[in-house]
Amino acid sequence: MSRGDDLDRWLDGHRGELLRQLIDWVRIPSISADPEHTADVRRSAEFLAAAAGEAGFPRAELWETAGHPAVFAERMEDPRLPTVLIYAHHDVQPADPLDEWTSPPFEPVVVEGELRGRGVVDDKQNVCMHLEAVRAHLAVVGRMPVNLRLLVEGEEESGSAHFEDLIRSRRSELAADLAVISDTGMLGPESPALTIGLRGLVYWEVRVAGPAHDLHSGLYGGTVANPVLGLATLLAGLHDGEGRVAVPGFYEAVRVPGAAERQEMARIPFDEAGFLAAAEVPGPSGERGWSTLERRTVRPTLDVCGIWGGYAGAGAKTIIPARCGVKLSARIVPDQDPDVIADLVRRHLLDRAPAGLTTTVEVVSRGRWVSAPPDHPALGAAGRAVEAVWGRAPSLVREGGSIPPVAAIAAELGLACVLFGVGLPDDRFHAPNERLRLEQLHRGTRAAVRLWDELGTLGAAGLGRPAGPASPG
Amino acid sequence: MSRGDDLDRWLDGHRGELLRQLIDWVRIPSISADPEHTADVRRSAEFLAAAAGEAGFPRAELWETAGHPAVFAERMEDPRLPTVLIYAHHDVQPADPLDEWTSPPFEPVVVEGELRGRGVVDDKQNVCMHLEAVRAHLAVVGRMPVNLRLLVEGEEESGSAHFEDLIRSRRSELAADLAVISDTGMLGPESPALTIGLRGLVYWEVRVAGPAHDLHSGLYGGTVANPVLGLATLLAGLHDGEGRVAVPGFYEAVRVPGAAERQEMARIPFDEAGFLAAAEVPGPSGERGWSTLERRTVRPTLDVCGIWGGYAGAGAKTIIPARCGVKLSARIVPDQDPDVIADLVRRHLLDRAPAGLTTTVEVVSRGRWVSAPPDHPALGAAGRAVEAVWGRAPSLVREGGSIPPVAAIAAELGLACVLFGVGLPDDRFHAPNERLRLEQLHRGTRAAVRLWDELGTLGAAGLGRPAGPASPG
Repeated sequence: MSRGDDLDRWLDGHRGELLRQLIDWVRIPSISADPEHTADVRRSAEFLAAAAGEAGFPRAELWETAGHPAVFAERMEDPRLPTVLIYAHHDVQPADPLDEWTSPPFEPVVVEGELRGRGVVDDKQNVCMHLEAVRAHLAVVGRMPVNLRLLVEGEEESGSAHFEDLIRSRRSELAADLAVISDTGMLGPESPALTIGLRGLVYWEVRVAGPAHDLHSGLYGGTVANPVLGLATLLAGLHDGEGRVAVPGFYEAVRVPGAAERQEMARIPFDEAGFLAAAEVPGPSGERGWSTLERRTVRPTLDVCGIWGGYAGAGAKTIIPARCGVKLSARIVPDQDPDVIADLVRRHLLDRAPAGLTTTVEVVSRGRWVSAPPDHPALGAAGRAVEAVWGRAPSLVREGGSIPPVAAIAAELGLACVLFGVGLPDDRFHAPNERLRLEQLHRGTRAAVRLWDELGTLGAAGLGRPAGPASPG
Repeated sequence: MSRGDDLDRWLDGHRGELLRQLIDWVRIPSISADPEHTADVRRSAEFLAAAAGEAGFPRAELWETAGHPAVFAERMEDPRLPTVLIYAHHDVQPADPLDEWTSPPFEPVVVEGELRGRGVVDDKQNVCMHLEAVRAHLAVVGRMPVNLRLLVEGEEESGSAHFEDLIRSRRSELAADLAVISDTGMLGPESPALTIGLRGLVYWEVRVAGPAHDLHSGLYGGTVANPVLGLATLLAGLHDGEGRVAVPGFYEAVRVPGAAERQEMARIPFDEAGFLAAAEVPGPSGERGWSTLERRTVRPTLDVCGIWGGYAGAGAKTIIPARCGVKLSARIVPDQDPDVIADLVRRHLLDRAPAGLTTTVEVVSRGRWVSAPPDHPALGAAGRAVEAVWGRAPSLVREGGSIPPVAAIAAELGLACVLFGVGLPDDRFHAPNERLRLEQLHRGTRAAVRLWDELGTLGAAGLGRPAGPASPG
């Protein structure tokens, strides 16, 4: 098809600009979890709003929240065309441990066809991909085949605390026929995929306090409760010997996949060996009776994300720590309710709180899982766009990660969601030396260009809009 | 006694200089555990050597080790007089957590009759006390009643790794009739005490490693072993439900006190309520069947001094940590062997090392307990010196802390040890806001002045030196 070829040629001719834009953006350390980077998250939003304006969105602005700002951009081509809401995020994970990066996290470098830096793949590349697809359409065709509303939040990596409030208060400006979520990935460079499920996330911080200050472990050792030993006992009681979460009721609402679904999952070209090799672990581990792919997608988990307390410096310091803490996260699956799970774990920890110490549990964030119907026409359109670029139909997969705002978009805005993103499992999301393989970015941009054409061909009615002249919003 | 009065008057007239010297010294952050403070530990040694020279030690010099330097000073008055080796240390504990100090740790301040700062009580005050007692004798009497050899090491707070080597290689220069160890305390301002026992110390660092880098807890949660959960299980298995250490063989060599010794301990005016109130804990905790004083002196313990792993910053970071670690310390009692205990715990941890993870155990330091005979004539001399100042005879107590070099002095140099120091249990040793009550310093200095007179009166023969003209060394 000549139009696709023309668009591809334009994209090929502009790779340098695309890469430069991404690099400039990655230089801004938009770490939303760290209050020291508050100004950087705002700088990142301002960078993006300017870039969206230049790319061809007549309206591009910051949307303030009680936390970090989101970016909204809009290009309404024709009210009769389908309107698509794109969701992504411009904030990034913290970069520590810093000493494990081979190059500074916010000084992105291109090495052997990949770009390295914090946020290159999660999630700035997906946003750049979408901006580039718009530029291509406008340059080659002169117009977009769909109306676009772009919402890029600034708090995804720290729990999206204000996202629901934001979309509730902006509901009419976000009206659309479909949401395209770009914060997921594929199975491998030659194993394209579209995501039809995400796990939910509940995050706790647990603190155990003992003496008012650190005590000399000689003077006090043996006489008072040690907070770290108390916390260790709490943590050791979170799982049973079979790798199952030992919190009563934790599995009660879990939708257990049937034999047919398990067979279908077994056919997905999931590279378990590669997946484990990327983590450099000796082997898989977890709940007995389920495959690795099942354990990371349709089974819930409870993990420790961090622990601290007392002396962690060089050499020996002989103290009984005054206090310690731990960060816990659960990935939850249909039909677990995040509020119920948040409370079950909190109560479980408080019920077993060690004697002589003060245990507190704070629920830091909670987000629902997502489960999309595999027969939605937009998913078919996305499948054709991906197949045209990769030469094979994408697998429909469930993901282990969580994007709480996707659940909010589905629930609050009543939108069907297509999850389209091009990161790969070994791209070191959230880890040192996060990387983006540039070939994925370029293929993804070609697919995005085609996705808008496919959705334009489908038309608003094909996406389920009731007959009538009005565009949503 | 007029001579004692004269000495006291001199001391009272020089309190300002004594305090200024201590403050100047405390300003030097001689943290031996932290490599960033290596130069400071040396500065501290140089400060002390200069101060000892000015106080009246004709020989005062740095003694190099493979680690931080010690300070040696000598004043040989007359070979027929008793020669006393004084031991103390000039290094200090790390100051963190810094945000809990009400004033900067290395900017000492006097508030309500107490001096606050890191190292004020542990152990710089004891050294200043001894220098001041020498100054007083020389100013008032013109000579010392004993010969003094002062050895002040620079690595006590980080495990005294090179102390044994040092005293072995300097054996002849350290010869003496008696050692006076000044790194212990009393029971309360009006409850003077001399220490006749110390626990030993074994210190380990345990590391548990999982994936090569932090993993995204969504992508990998449920599929690989979590190092922190593995470590927590290890730690939770260190004690049983009765508060006893669950490491097989741990108690095997423990000398169990008989009924008579337990009755005697029960008579010690140990202020349990005050002891616990100083820690601000709701109540005592520990091995069932033993009093708080027994648990801190004649019973061994195993504690966590610090733990770390994964994300400990603000907000939520969703990772599976690549690795974590913990610092463990045991306080051991007669007749536990530090090498045996070091190995028992190490083997116990490795035997139970969690699957799918790599557990390593490093023995950081180990030191013997000390147990002194309560009928030694030098202990009687020290008792009289203390009684003359406090107006009551000191209790003979065992301490919960450990001073591994004391065990080395006893074993390597074959010296009887008198443990004389004036810190108090609630002086926040090793904790933020460490303090010294100045009245303890001044009383201690008066007692030190009298201690040298008492030992001089006792004479070399009274301390067990064989008849003959030769002084040791």
